[in-house]
Amino acid sequence: MDEKRKAAFEVGIKLGALFHQFIGVPVSEKNAKILEKAIESCVKLQPYVINAEVRIDTSKIESEMGYESLRPDMLYAKVEVEVNGEKAVGVLEWDEKMKYPMMKLL
Amino acid sequence: MDEKRKAAFEVGIKLGALFHQFIGVPVSEKNAKILEKAIESCVKLQPYVINAEVRIDTSKIESEMGYESLRPDMLYAKVEVEVNGEKAVGVLEWDEKMKYPMMKLL
Amino acid sequence: MDEKRKAAFEVGIKLGALFHQFIGVPVSEKNAKILEKAIESCVKLQPYVINAEVRIDTSKIESEMGYESLRPDMLYAKVEVEVNGEKAVGVLEWDEKMKYPMMKLL
Amino acid sequence: MDEKRKAAFEVGIKLGALFHQFIGVPVSEKNAKILEKAIESCVKLQPYVINAEVRIDTSKIESEMGYESLRPDMLYAKVEVEVNGEKAVGVLEWDEKMKYPMMKLL
Repeated sequence: MDEKRKAAFEVGIKLGALFHQFIGVPVSEKNAKILEKAIESCVKLQPYVINAEVRIDTSKIESEMGYESLRPDMLYAKVEVEVNGEKAVGVLEWDEKMKYPMMKLL
Repeated sequence: MDEKRKAAFEVGIKLGALFHQFIGVPVSEKNAKILEKAIESCVKLQPYVINAEVRIDTSKIESEMGYESLRPDMLYAKVEVEVNGEKAVGVLEWDEKMKYPMMKLL
Repeated sequence: MDEKRKAAFEVGIKLGALFHQFIGVPVSEKNAKILEKAIESCVKLQPYVINAEVRIDTSKIESEMGYESLRPDMLYAKVEVEVNGEKAVGVLEWDEKMKYPMMKLL
Repeated sequence: MDEKRKAAFEVGIKLGALFHQFIGVPVSEKNAKILEKAIESCVKLQPYVINAEVRIDTSKIESEMGYESLRPDMLYAKVEVEVNGEKAVGVLEWDEKMKYPMMKLL
């Protein structure tokens, strides 16, 4: 039980961290791939992480300047952790109906 | 001349800093005032700053959760610096036509 | 069981979020109290949070400029959430031996 | 004259922005290069930028966890902008004596 809770706690940390670290970062089609890889590399350094996947939806860029400060509705992430054999997977995904960056424990 | 350039440089630093530090911060009508004061207090600590004014427009909150991660279109700031007697004033204000958080040197 | 895991996940989100949102914020003795209150107000807006306590240790400021970009070793936070009657408490505290901002589920 | 001031303002924005966006990002020898490239890519998207160079000094990592939240003393950046033919170059570099991330207009 404690490992299950700990795994859920750890995956929550990673999603909260990546959202608040990277929201606002300048992004366009030009650098979306390198940003995705950089964000994944940051998550993978953190304790207990066994996988991380990040996607940025550049089709939502609206600015006339050709790039945008990364918005919550452009960001998807899936993080998997393992704590003493117990795995947990968390997902960050924009909920268009709620207008909210929903984080869920799978 | 050098003081004029230096003052412009310093006010640019402050606007870039506050935007990228605080975009994403959870905000609603409940804490907008304390956030404005906290952001102003952060700017005023920095070198050469003689005044800072921050406003958050909570009428733009769209989320069904009752609060929002601070978005660029909700944030206004005006910062004044003085370097060896030369003053410079910079403003951060959302440009609705460009869909861009425009920073201008007055 | 699911509520216990969900509560742990939610408190993890809040600690990860506050750390990565606010590290780097300019702080001195002058604005530490308002910053603590502002950070607490941000955490309290988020879903399931029933209490949040933040402390910034300004005795660790080293810069000759009289203020500092908030460092991990200066920041303490305790967050309590409740999900369908299940509570979880998480703490962020600098571990001087590990030189690491340790987050623990109580 | 106005172009000189404007160029200084713009390069200030970029240095303030990159510092406050990326301080706190998890970094080790494993991902320092991809982070440097990602940060440079973000700066280069912004208006008037003609060059950006970022270096992260991983020799300063102290944490027992094998990675560190990016600290001001680990970060160097040089940004060049051009506004209507007027160039300006700004540098962010840790000042060990002042214990401060000094930003200078060259």
